[in-house]
Amino acid sequence: MAIKPSLPKGTRDMLPDEMLKREYIINSIKNTFKKYGFSPIETPAFEKVETLTGKYGEEGDRLVFKILPRGRKLTDAINGENPQEQLPKSVEEALRYDLTVPLARFVVQNQSQLIFPFKRYQVQNVWRADRPQKGRFREFVQCDADALGSKSLLQEVDFVAIYTEVFEKLSLPVTVKINNRKILAGLAEAFGVANRVADFTIALDKLDKIGLEGVAKELSEKNFPEKAIEGLKSLTQINGSNQERLGQLEILLKESELGKKGLEELQFVIEACENLNLNKSLSIDFTLARGLDYYTGTIFEVVANDVQMGSIGGGGRYDDLTGIFGMKNLPGIGISFGLDRIQMVLEEKDLYPDLKSSSTQVLFINFGEREALFSLALAKELRDLDVKTEIYPDAAKIKKQMDYANKKGIRRVLMIGENEIKEGKFTLKDMESGEQQVLGKIELLELFNTNESRYGLH
Amino acid sequence: MAIKPSLPKGTRDMLPDEMLKREYIINSIKNTFKKYGFSPIETPAFEKVETLTGKYGEEGDRLVFKILPRGRKLTDAINGENPQEQLPKSVEEALRYDLTVPLARFVVQNQSQLIFPFKRYQVQNVWRADRPQKGRFREFVQCDADALGSKSLLQEVDFVAIYTEVFEKLSLPVTVKINNRKILAGLAEAFGVANRVADFTIALDKLDKIGLEGVAKELSEKNFPEKAIEGLKSLTQINGSNQERLGQLEILLKESELGKKGLEELQFVIEACENLNLNKSLSIDFTLARGLDYYTGTIFEVVANDVQMGSIGGGGRYDDLTGIFGMKNLPGIGISFGLDRIQMVLEEKDLYPDLKSSSTQVLFINFGEREALFSLALAKELRDLDVKTEIYPDAAKIKKQMDYANKKGIRRVLMIGENEIKEGKFTLKDMESGEQQVLGKIELLELFNTNESRYGLH
Repeated sequence: MAIKPSLPKGTRDMLPDEMLKREYIINSIKNTFKKYGFSPIETPAFEKVETLTGKYGEEGDRLVFKILPRGRKLTDAINGENPQEQLPKSVEEALRYDLTVPLARFVVQNQSQLIFPFKRYQVQNVWRADRPQKGRFREFVQCDADALGSKSLLQEVDFVAIYTEVFEKLSLPVTVKINNRKILAGLAEAFGVANRVADFTIALDKLDKIGLEGVAKELSEKNFPEKAIEGLKSLTQINGSNQERLGQLEILLKESELGKKGLEELQFVIEACENLNLNKSLSIDFTLARGLDYYTGTIFEVVANDVQMGSIGGGGRYDDLTGIFGMKNLPGIGISFGLDRIQMVLEEKDLYPDLKSSSTQVLFINFGEREALFSLALAKELRDLDVKTEIYPDAAKIKKQMDYANKKGIRRVLMIGENEIKEGKFTLKDMESGEQQVLGKIELLELFNTNESRYGLH
Repeated sequence: MAIKPSLPKGTRDMLPDEMLKREYIINSIKNTFKKYGFSPIETPAFEKVETLTGKYGEEGDRLVFKILPRGRKLTDAINGENPQEQLPKSVEEALRYDLTVPLARFVVQNQSQLIFPFKRYQVQNVWRADRPQKGRFREFVQCDADALGSKSLLQEVDFVAIYTEVFEKLSLPVTVKINNRKILAGLAEAFGVANRVADFTIALDKLDKIGLEGVAKELSEKNFPEKAIEGLKSLTQINGSNQERLGQLEILLKESELGKKGLEELQFVIEACENLNLNKSLSIDFTLARGLDYYTGTIFEVVANDVQMGSIGGGGRYDDLTGIFGMKNLPGIGISFGLDRIQMVLEEKDLYPDLKSSSTQVLFINFGEREALFSLALAKELRDLDVKTEIYPDAAKIKKQMDYANKKGIRRVLMIGENEIKEGKFTLKDMESGEQQVLGKIELLELFNTNESRYGLH
């Protein structure tokens, strides 16, 4: 009996049409990263288990995919006195859970070979044994860029520019929300909960999901003072232009040194972005918190306008990413793009360009062996001009061959039968318009050389 | 105590310089695949364990990385009566070992959505728990293209053209060896060992490693008749042009129908390639066997000329890749490129072009906040022209900033101090020649627009 083919839970195949869309998005991101001076790196799919454990909290640790030990290691662990304890200890490798911890490991391990400030991008899969649901998979791509080694706020401006440029390329209107962790810490001071910044941030982070009332309820259950809850409410009422928002907060934070520092940083970034015309989509949101606890300065989150989808990008500044691996006080900032969600939004808003035109440009209809051999030689000349060319491999019915061209989105087919070879005139059919024209070889090569090969996406 | 960062055995990080080289090779391969009408697909890193087991022989099965079961599955298996038996049975997922079995699974599972003949390429990592050694890793990239659904020998010709084109792009002189499994079967008939084709093929496959004497010894230990050993020796003496080789074999195979069929196929491919001028690097090798047992027709192997490296590519035709998943008699042909070895050969022969010139084209020296903000605006104009641009984030010593440009291979630096801003004249230094020129803004933008942004690799 043959095995019925299927996939593990939470994983998926990428078919050609899907790949075209993903490559379109990924290339837009990568090309922008490169334009701003970021270089690519890659790390292995699995890391030593001790590199990953303890970095993602208890919940995260449970979601890390571990590799089964092999050979002697496995049998010893199972046959030992206490396999429940032995087996987990004998695990050596685990699949990476994100690209951030591997980046920290990478930078420390390879520091002597890197150029600082080190600006890298990384587009690779990560794996999480999460419960699969719509739009959430156990294998998914992360697209990250980080700059390590400088505290300069010019980098914040670059990242706003990168977000803006990528989403403009994709014709997707977005809002880049910005805040600063120092402001959140200052607010906690102002609200009299300076010693509970982490709890306050975690509660704020849920505003999107459970609303103001939900967060207020959670804060009062956690015995936060009324002042904090009132403060939170006033935060959600801040509005106006970015400059107006900054003005409203200045009063609130006048007692907090840290808060004022955060405001200054934010002010610098906002003004520099205004000078570069990057302010149209940039919006201060003082309730923006971001879950991860290593952020210490600017934080970002990107949402698509007029779509219910959650964030399609995010990131922020940190002071010490690499400390856990023994390299202290290396500051940095990084952002991430959520590929799957961006793909879904572009789908929903029907924003993809005609991607199939970047595939095969012309198909030679196969009329038999002699004609096919003749076609091969002409195809070679087209391919030498960088024209994407196919010859249908079998002398099947014309309809079947035309169907192939249609399904594959091949715009032009060339019909070269016995007579055409004799006369040196070939019939070119445009599958979109249905138009046919008869061309000599030189005309044909010229047509593709000037019109076609420059088209399309790389 | 901080963890000393390190990697699992047999894995490696890819640093930016390495990535540039790999992207250069991979893009040459992908662009050629596309030019011949192949579309990209991807499959998940891990498959159901039953999809992979039993497909790679006993040795292969042992090298498959399996995923540790999670939660209840794991505790039940360990705490059960017979954990030695239970644990392996409760494993659900395993990392893919190659791209061929996943392709077979993919085609059967998604057949209703695919366009046949289905021409796909796939460039993804595979994992094998092999003993690591020089040039052999536990995680490595496979670059495969396969065409499924046709027996047409035109596809053989396309694949010879693809190999030729890719290695010409990479300026690497190679030999594409070609043979046909039907010829090998015919030879086995002619040598009186028709019932032992598999053993004969396996022995032949070792010719490169253990030489003629080694193979002869192995054959006689396995009780092959003297006629087979003599036949093998005569095979290794066949020489001359491809046509001459075909002629020499014709006599040997005149009694074998299968052998004659193989010769005819090979003759067709050789002649079609001659017509396309693809014969310079194409060389018949009747001792070429290829290890894998699913090949049934043409087989290929590519070696770099004048380098001791083993094969840097290979592939062949098969009649039934998908039968194991319930889709019988789907013919196909595929080839593979060995990325790691190609990379090593290009390194050894020093064949890489200047890849750094595809990175950042100009660095703005940072003279302080005011100058940097001015630079940001000019950088934006350059970036709008697609010029890869960086601003050094901090007002560090000039030497440090110049070092950064040098190490990163940035060819040009722009110096914009207070006076330059006032006068609207900027100093551009060429880091290669040391030359400096003073330019106004328009001149600067024009210089990069015409010279630079068209350069470089995509």
